[in-house]
Amino acid sequence: MGILVVWVGMSKPAVNPPSGFRDFAPAEAALRRELLQTIASVYGLHGFQEVSLSALENLSTLQGKGGGTDNEKLVFKVMKRGEELERAKASQADLADLGLRFDLTLPLARFCARFTQIPRPFKVFQMGPVWRADRPQKGRFREFFQCDVDIVGAQEWGAELEVLLAILAVFEKVGLEGLELHLNDRNLLHSFRPTGASDEQWSKALVALDKLDKLEASQVIDEVTLILGGLSDNWRKIVEGFSLTDAPDSVKETAQDLGLLIGNLQKLAPGVRVQFNPSLVRGQDYYTGTIFELRHKDLSGSLGGGGRYNRLLEVFGAAETPAFGGSIGFERLALLLEAKALGSKAPKVFLPLLGDQLREPCAALAQRLRKSGIAVDLYPDAAKLTKQFKYADSMGFPLALILGESEIQSGTVKIKNLSSREETVSDSGLGLEQKIRTLLLVE
Amino acid sequence: MGILVVWVGMSKPAVNPPSGFRDFAPAEAALRRELLQTIASVYGLHGFQEVSLSALENLSTLQGKGGGTDNEKLVFKVMKRGEELERAKASQADLADLGLRFDLTLPLARFCARFTQIPRPFKVFQMGPVWRADRPQKGRFREFFQCDVDIVGAQEWGAELEVLLAILAVFEKVGLEGLELHLNDRNLLHSFRPTGASDEQWSKALVALDKLDKLEASQVIDEVTLILGGLSDNWRKIVEGFSLTDAPDSVKETAQDLGLLIGNLQKLAPGVRVQFNPSLVRGQDYYTGTIFELRHKDLSGSLGGGGRYNRLLEVFGAAETPAFGGSIGFERLALLLEAKALGSKAPKVFLPLLGDQLREPCAALAQRLRKSGIAVDLYPDAAKLTKQFKYADSMGFPLALILGESEIQSGTVKIKNLSSREETVSDSGLGLEQKIRTLLLVE
Repeated sequence: MGILVVWVGMSKPAVNPPSGFRDFAPAEAALRRELLQTIASVYGLHGFQEVSLSALENLSTLQGKGGGTDNEKLVFKVMKRGEELERAKASQADLADLGLRFDLTLPLARFCARFTQIPRPFKVFQMGPVWRADRPQKGRFREFFQCDVDIVGAQEWGAELEVLLAILAVFEKVGLEGLELHLNDRNLLHSFRPTGASDEQWSKALVALDKLDKLEASQVIDEVTLILGGLSDNWRKIVEGFSLTDAPDSVKETAQDLGLLIGNLQKLAPGVRVQFNPSLVRGQDYYTGTIFELRHKDLSGSLGGGGRYNRLLEVFGAAETPAFGGSIGFERLALLLEAKALGSKAPKVFLPLLGDQLREPCAALAQRLRKSGIAVDLYPDAAKLTKQFKYADSMGFPLALILGESEIQSGTVKIKNLSSREETVSDSGLGLEQKIRTLLLVE
Repeated sequence: MGILVVWVGMSKPAVNPPSGFRDFAPAEAALRRELLQTIASVYGLHGFQEVSLSALENLSTLQGKGGGTDNEKLVFKVMKRGEELERAKASQADLADLGLRFDLTLPLARFCARFTQIPRPFKVFQMGPVWRADRPQKGRFREFFQCDVDIVGAQEWGAELEVLLAILAVFEKVGLEGLELHLNDRNLLHSFRPTGASDEQWSKALVALDKLDKLEASQVIDEVTLILGGLSDNWRKIVEGFSLTDAPDSVKETAQDLGLLIGNLQKLAPGVRVQFNPSLVRGQDYYTGTIFELRHKDLSGSLGGGGRYNRLLEVFGAAETPAFGGSIGFERLALLLEAKALGSKAPKVFLPLLGDQLREPCAALAQRLRKSGIAVDLYPDAAKLTKQFKYADSMGFPLALILGESEIQSGTVKIKNLSSREETVSDSGLGLEQKIRTLLLVE
């Protein structure tokens, strides 16, 4: 094995993933798969179709698209390769040409501009990892999943209703209560912009206003006052709150639509506290209308959010296309469910290997049971029985099947309950599957 | 909307993903999800548990681990960020610190060395994307899925049997016939290594031998003769073929075990042509024993492969741990199934919106049907009916429900068959769900 010699004597490499990245062991991985499958099936029931887009994008796609300056700064950049890299080094050009996507909305806008022949309204969902070169901290990762749902090519608040009902149905399906849905509209926010405030001033003011859920109102008011200088302080209504029926004339219709949306959601999702939140801002620059955020009474931070982005497809050369979408905070939801231990485990039967000569009948029995839908784990080595049963204990199998020489001769299989140690002898004929299922149900 | 002004006048960005990367539109994405779910469920039935590992690794993890020199060269490198990047530039140090994984085996070895407390044998599967900076060409992509299944901590050929039965069960489940399973053992190959051949010479000779499925035998023989110079040509037996019972004395036991494995597979997977292939090499340097490859009679290239890698965990500081695993060629399988159009579509019901004032009853009806498991697509805008039904046609919905003012007053719903244009009037009470299901079944 000469080839292997080169490994010997190398320094021990790190066994951890890079900082901010995670490995999911079996229990977590199973819960995540189950949750993703649940979300896909709920989105499907609501008439959304899945697309699955490239994880890497050209850097030019990720930069300067109104994707929110903050996220742009957080792109993991991928280096050019081979000759191209050498040329770039020699000419002091950019060394990177690709980047990892930081959200699923920008790639979707690119996709929709690419395939304009897909019928509109396009009801679409996406699930997959995104990457941000953020400073890792508790609960903030550099690789995390998003589960987006969008309607592209619909301008009325019916799109908002359909997207939000689909998202809320996921939380209902997994049995998470205590959800709050906060809604606002960027145009309502902008109607309070003081005449004379520059784009930059107003952007900064909105960022400050967005902190209302974390800071005291007086602190926020002080900060915004500082940003806007001596300009009119009509914007205070955002902090002080106002009723949708009192919205300024210029945005009467917007306020009315938002009211209708909220009213319908309250009726159709009675378990959720749906409310108008005049100080909700949401970070992305590309939002043009309705914005929303999902919160939970027992959690800080959000369980999801999104908004209307009627101008984003134009960035990719498409005609103006109204669009609305949102995302479920998959990682937080998975953690919540993990805490509630909702992950189900497929029932499994352990089949020890009692001797080298028994491999064939044991493998045949395992295959037969698997074909009938019973998950079987056949031990791969003819190891000592104590070792095999120690493994079975650590795996928590409810049942073991014993197939030894004597069982084969008498046409039977012994079924052993691994918690009570009780044994049942069963005919190895067709009744066996039924017997195992019954015993698994009792467990 | 001052913030949006900056977009105007920008050059039109590319709407395609980077070269070698793909976007999957709804029909493909649905087929891929279904196939992944099928594989996960078959692996689960065979007693394997899923893990889901970090997509990015420290570059040191990906390099110099015997992961096959070729794949190492193909790593997409991720640049350092912020101050660290500036420091690296100033000191002429490496500009990259992370890389995208190029397979799932190396990360699994790292994971198993990290979590030695997981009970062994560890029967584990993984599904996810891997990335290789290969030259893109027809059928070769830079981002593709792998579906690996492994047993870590088992040394007998029972591990091979369990892994291969799980992989073959996937192909049986999706109904793909004409499969060939080629098996060999690295130790059989090495037993024909001429005394005096250097590691480098022998490595090159194996690479040349691996081309036997693409080139004429005489060409391969010429090339290997050139590589090995005047050394003994006992290695010709690899090309000429030999029976397992004629294996050299030094590898008698290996040959016997391989024969038993093949015999068991032939009995337990009668639909597959299982055969000993003395010239099968497989590329990875880390294989130490059994190797296999799945082929299809109508395809060039492979539908999967793998092998035993008893020394790989040591690279990550773990004790010597026998391990065997393999991978399904997910992308090729997905393409084959796409050609066979096996992708199923959830039945969907279209619900047009006949007027602004009907939003609430339509949304309520949609929600009610979804809760009973019927996928409903409610049109989000109160657009002209011709536009709405044009959309329904392009989507291929079998049924539409009509809920207008008159239906609401009479407590009915009209069900319209969108191919025959036939209409049925149904009571809007509880019988509706049943009626829709029946009509969908007939479709």
